[in-house]
Amino acid sequence: MNLRYDADGLIPAIAQQHDTGEVLMLAWMNRTAVEETLSTGRVCYWSRSRGTLWRKGETSGQTQRLVELRYDCDGDTLLLLVDQVGVACHTGHRTCFYTAWRHCAPTEIAPVVITPDTLYGA
Amino acid sequence: MNLRYDADGLIPAIAQQHDTGEVLMLAWMNRTAVEETLSTGRVCYWSRSRGTLWRKGETSGQTQRLVELRYDCDGDTLLLLVDQVGVACHTGHRTCFYTAWRHCAPTEIAPVVITPDTLYGA
Repeated sequence: MNLRYDADGLIPAIAQQHDTGEVLMLAWMNRTAVEETLSTGRVCYWSRSRGTLWRKGETSGQTQRLVELRYDCDGDTLLLLVDQVGVACHTGHRTCFYTAWRHCAPTEIAPVVITPDTLYGA
Repeated sequence: MNLRYDADGLIPAIAQQHDTGEVLMLAWMNRTAVEETLSTGRVCYWSRSRGTLWRKGETSGQTQRLVELRYDCDGDTLLLLVDQVGVACHTGHRTCFYTAWRHCAPTEIAPVVITPDTLYGA
Protein backbone atom coordinates (compact mmCIF):
# COMPACT_ATOMS: atom_id res chain seq x y z
CA MET A 1 0.00 0.00 0.00
CA ASN A 2 1.61 3.24 -1.13
CA LEU A 3 0.56 5.53 1.68
CA ARG A 4 2.17 8.92 2.19
CA TYR A 5 2.75 9.70 5.84
CA ASP A 6 3.47 13.30 6.87
CA ALA A 7 6.68 14.61 8.44
CA ASP A 8 5.53 13.20 11.80
CA GLY A 9 4.91 9.78 10.27
CA LEU A 10 1.13 10.22 10.47
CA ILE A 11 -1.80 10.04 8.07
CA PRO A 12 -5.34 11.31 8.73
CA ALA A 13 -8.07 8.68 8.87
CA ILE A 14 -11.77 9.43 8.42
CA ALA A 15 -14.07 6.92 10.11
CA GLN A 16 -17.42 6.42 8.41
CA GLN A 17 -20.19 4.09 9.57
CA HIS A 18 -20.29 1.53 6.78
CA ASP A 19 -24.05 1.15 6.39
CA THR A 20 -25.46 4.59 7.16
CA GLY A 21 -22.68 6.71 5.65
CA GLU A 22 -22.43 8.81 8.79
CA VAL A 23 -19.01 10.43 9.21
CA LEU A 24 -18.05 9.67 12.78
CA MET A 25 -14.64 11.21 13.42
CA LEU A 26 -11.21 12.04 12.06
CA ALA A 27 -8.12 10.76 13.82
CA TRP A 28 -4.53 9.93 12.92
CA MET A 29 -2.61 6.75 12.30
CA ASN A 30 1.04 5.86 11.99
CA ARG A 31 2.29 2.85 10.05
CA THR A 32 2.03 0.57 13.09
CA ALA A 33 -1.58 1.61 13.68
CA VAL A 34 -2.48 0.90 10.05
CA GLU A 35 -0.85 -2.52 10.19
CA GLU A 36 -2.45 -3.44 13.51
CA THR A 37 -5.87 -2.32 12.29
CA LEU A 38 -5.58 -4.45 9.15
CA SER A 39 -4.33 -7.48 11.02
CA THR A 40 -6.79 -7.40 13.93
CA GLY A 41 -9.84 -5.85 12.22
CA ARG A 42 -10.20 -3.56 15.20
CA VAL A 43 -9.40 0.09 14.57
CA CYS A 44 -6.26 1.42 16.23
CA TYR A 45 -5.21 5.07 15.93
CA TRP A 46 -2.20 7.07 17.05
CA SER A 47 -3.05 9.49 19.83
CA ARG A 48 -1.15 12.71 19.11
CA SER A 49 -1.93 14.08 22.58
CA ARG A 50 -0.75 10.98 24.46
CA GLY A 51 1.91 9.90 21.97
CA THR A 52 0.76 6.29 22.07
CA LEU A 53 -1.23 3.79 20.05
CA TRP A 54 -4.90 4.22 20.80
CA ARG A 55 -7.05 1.17 20.41
CA LYS A 56 -10.40 2.83 19.93
CA GLY A 57 -12.73 1.86 22.76
CA GLU A 58 -10.04 0.41 25.04
CA THR A 59 -11.30 2.57 27.92
CA SER A 60 -14.88 3.33 26.91
CA GLY A 61 -15.81 0.03 25.27
CA GLN A 62 -16.94 1.95 22.18
CA THR A 63 -14.89 -0.03 19.67
CA GLN A 64 -14.74 0.22 15.90
CA ARG A 65 -14.64 -2.89 13.75
CA LEU A 66 -12.99 -2.35 10.39
CA VAL A 67 -15.20 -3.22 7.44
CA GLU A 68 -12.96 -1.82 4.71
CA LEU A 69 -9.94 0.43 4.39
CA ARG A 70 -9.84 2.83 1.46
CA TYR A 71 -7.40 5.59 0.58
CA ASP A 72 -7.42 8.57 -1.68
CA CYS A 73 -5.82 9.40 -5.02
CA ASP A 74 -2.75 10.95 -3.36
CA GLY A 75 -2.38 8.17 -0.80
CA ASP A 76 -2.30 10.72 1.99
CA THR A 77 -5.73 10.19 3.57
CA LEU A 78 -7.49 7.04 4.76
CA LEU A 79 -11.22 6.38 4.72
CA LEU A 80 -12.14 3.65 7.18
CA LEU A 81 -15.53 2.03 6.77
CA VAL A 82 -16.31 0.83 10.25
CA ASP A 83 -18.97 -0.66 12.43
CA GLN A 84 -19.07 1.61 15.49
CA VAL A 85 -20.22 0.15 18.80
CA GLY A 86 -22.27 2.75 20.69
CA VAL A 87 -20.80 6.20 20.20
CA ALA A 88 -17.67 7.48 18.50
CA CYS A 89 -17.27 10.69 20.48
CA HIS A 90 -15.87 11.05 23.99
CA THR A 91 -18.71 13.53 24.67
CA GLY A 92 -21.21 10.69 24.28
CA HIS A 93 -22.50 11.83 20.89
CA ARG A 94 -22.71 9.23 18.15
CA THR A 95 -20.47 11.35 15.92
CA CYS A 96 -17.87 13.98 16.75
CA PHE A 97 -19.49 16.25 14.13
CA TYR A 98 -22.54 17.20 16.17
CA THR A 99 -22.08 20.96 15.76
CA ALA A 100 -23.37 22.76 12.67
CA TRP A 101 -22.80 26.40 11.83
CA ARG A 102 -26.31 27.74 11.25
CA HIS A 103 -27.38 31.39 11.08
CA CYS A 104 -23.87 32.42 12.10
CA ALA A 105 -24.00 30.42 15.33
CA PRO A 106 -22.97 26.97 16.54
CA THR A 107 -25.95 24.64 16.73
CA GLU A 108 -25.92 21.22 18.36
CA ILE A 109 -27.72 18.93 15.94
CA ALA A 110 -27.40 15.55 17.67
CA PRO A 111 -28.06 14.37 21.20
CA VAL A 112 -25.80 12.88 23.84
CA VAL A 113 -26.54 9.17 23.59
CA ILE A 114 -24.41 7.96 26.51
CA THR A 115 -23.18 10.28 29.25
CA PRO A 116 -19.40 10.62 29.63
CA ASP A 117 -19.78 9.44 33.24
CA THR A 118 -21.22 6.20 31.95
CA LEU A 119 -18.42 5.91 29.38
CA TYR A 120 -15.49 6.76 31.63
CA GLY A 121 -16.75 6.63 35.21
CA ALA A 122 -17.63 9.65 37.36
CA MET B 1 -16.64 29.72 15.51
CA ASN B 2 -13.95 28.29 17.77
CA LEU B 3 -11.83 26.45 15.25
CA ARG B 4 -8.35 25.21 16.04
CA TYR B 5 -5.94 25.71 13.19
CA ASP B 6 -2.64 23.85 13.21
CA ALA B 7 0.85 25.35 13.37
CA ASP B 8 0.61 26.17 9.65
CA GLY B 9 -2.75 27.90 10.14
CA LEU B 10 -4.63 25.05 8.47
CA ILE B 11 -7.53 22.76 9.35
CA PRO B 12 -8.52 19.57 7.52
CA ALA B 13 -11.90 19.60 5.79
CA ILE B 14 -13.81 16.48 4.78
CA ALA B 15 -16.21 16.99 1.87
CA GLN B 16 -19.27 14.76 1.92
CA GLN B 17 -22.04 14.74 -0.69
CA HIS B 18 -25.00 16.01 1.31
CA ASP B 19 -27.70 13.65 0.03
CA THR B 20 -25.88 10.39 -0.65
CA GLY B 21 -23.41 10.50 2.24
CA GLU B 22 -20.51 9.73 -0.08
CA VAL B 23 -17.17 10.98 1.24
CA LEU B 24 -15.61 12.81 -1.69
CA MET B 25 -12.24 14.15 -0.55
CA LEU B 26 -10.19 15.63 2.22
CA ALA B 27 -8.45 18.96 1.72
CA TRP B 28 -7.22 21.83 3.88
CA MET B 29 -8.49 25.30 4.67
CA ASN B 30 -7.03 28.37 6.30
CA ARG B 31 -9.13 31.02 8.02
CA THR B 32 -9.57 33.00 4.80
CA ALA B 33 -10.79 29.92 2.95
CA VAL B 34 -13.33 29.17 5.69
CA GLU B 35 -14.62 32.72 5.64
CA GLU B 36 -14.83 32.88 1.85
CA THR B 37 -16.63 29.53 1.72
CA LEU B 38 -19.22 30.69 4.25
CA SER B 39 -19.77 34.04 2.57
CA THR B 40 -19.97 32.80 -1.03
CA GLY B 41 -21.46 29.33 -0.51
CA ARG B 42 -18.87 27.99 -2.91
CA VAL B 43 -16.17 25.83 -1.37
CA CYS B 44 -12.68 27.31 -1.30
CA TYR B 45 -9.69 25.37 0.05
CA TRP B 46 -6.05 26.20 0.66
CA SER B 47 -3.76 24.40 -1.75
CA ARG B 48 -0.73 23.24 0.23
CA SER B 49 1.18 22.36 -2.93
CA ARG B 50 0.58 25.69 -4.67
CA GLY B 51 0.41 27.83 -1.53
CA THR B 52 -2.70 29.64 -2.73
CA LEU B 53 -6.44 29.72 -2.19
CA TRP B 54 -8.05 27.04 -4.32
CA ARG B 55 -11.58 27.69 -5.40
CA LYS B 56 -12.67 24.14 -6.08
CA GLY B 57 -13.55 23.75 -9.74
CA GLU B 58 -11.98 27.01 -10.91
CA THR B 59 -10.07 25.12 -13.61
CA SER B 60 -12.13 21.97 -14.08
CA GLY B 61 -15.62 23.40 -13.58
CA GLN B 62 -16.27 20.72 -10.95
CA THR B 63 -17.45 23.08 -8.21
CA GLN B 64 -18.75 22.33 -4.74
CA ARG B 65 -21.71 24.22 -3.35
CA LEU B 66 -21.73 24.36 0.44
CA VAL B 67 -24.89 22.96 1.99
CA GLU B 68 -23.73 23.00 5.62
CA LEU B 69 -20.50 23.41 7.55
CA ARG B 70 -20.04 21.25 10.63
CA TYR B 71 -17.06 20.80 12.92
CA ASP B 72 -15.97 18.27 15.46
CA CYS B 73 -15.85 18.17 19.25
CA ASP B 74 -12.26 19.46 19.33
CA GLY B 75 -12.86 22.13 16.70
CA ASP B 76 -9.91 20.87 14.70
CA THR B 77 -11.67 19.19 11.76
CA LEU B 78 -14.39 20.44 9.41
CA LEU B 79 -17.09 18.37 7.78
CA LEU B 80 -18.48 20.11 4.71
CA LEU B 81 -21.80 18.87 3.39
CA VAL B 82 -21.64 19.82 -0.27
CA ASP B 83 -23.35 19.45 -3.57
CA GLN B 84 -20.61 18.32 -5.93
CA VAL B 85 -20.91 19.15 -9.62
CA GLY B 86 -19.59 16.25 -11.71
CA VAL B 87 -16.55 14.71 -10.05
CA ALA B 88 -14.51 15.65 -7.00
CA CYS B 89 -11.25 13.97 -8.03
CA HIS B 90 -8.70 15.28 -10.51
CA THR B 91 -8.44 11.72 -11.86
CA GLY B 92 -12.04 11.96 -13.04
CA HIS B 93 -13.47 9.67 -10.37
CA ARG B 94 -16.50 10.89 -8.48
CA THR B 95 -14.63 10.50 -5.17
CA CYS B 96 -10.93 10.56 -4.37
CA PHE B 97 -11.46 7.38 -2.31
CA TYR B 98 -11.80 4.99 -5.24
CA THR B 99 -9.14 2.56 -4.01
CA ALA B 100 -9.98 -0.14 -1.48
CA TRP B 101 -7.51 -2.49 0.16
CA ARG B 102 -8.95 -5.95 -0.55
CA HIS B 103 -7.21 -9.28 -0.20
CA CYS B 104 -3.95 -7.45 0.53
CA ALA B 105 -4.05 -5.55 -2.76
CA PRO B 106 -5.26 -2.17 -4.01
CA THR B 107 -8.56 -2.53 -5.84
CA GLU B 108 -10.18 0.21 -7.89
CA ILE B 109 -13.83 0.19 -6.88
CA ALA B 110 -15.24 3.11 -8.88
CA PRO B 111 -14.96 4.13 -12.53
CA VAL B 112 -13.51 7.19 -14.20
CA VAL B 113 -16.58 9.29 -14.93
CA ILE B 114 -14.90 12.12 -16.87
CA THR B 115 -11.43 11.78 -18.37
CA PRO B 116 -8.77 14.19 -17.07
CA ASP B 117 -8.29 15.40 -20.66
CA THR B 118 -11.90 16.51 -20.68
CA LEU B 119 -11.48 18.15 -17.29
CA TYR B 120 -8.21 19.94 -17.91
CA GLY B 121 -7.56 19.80 -21.67
CA ALA B 122 -5.15 17.46 -23.39
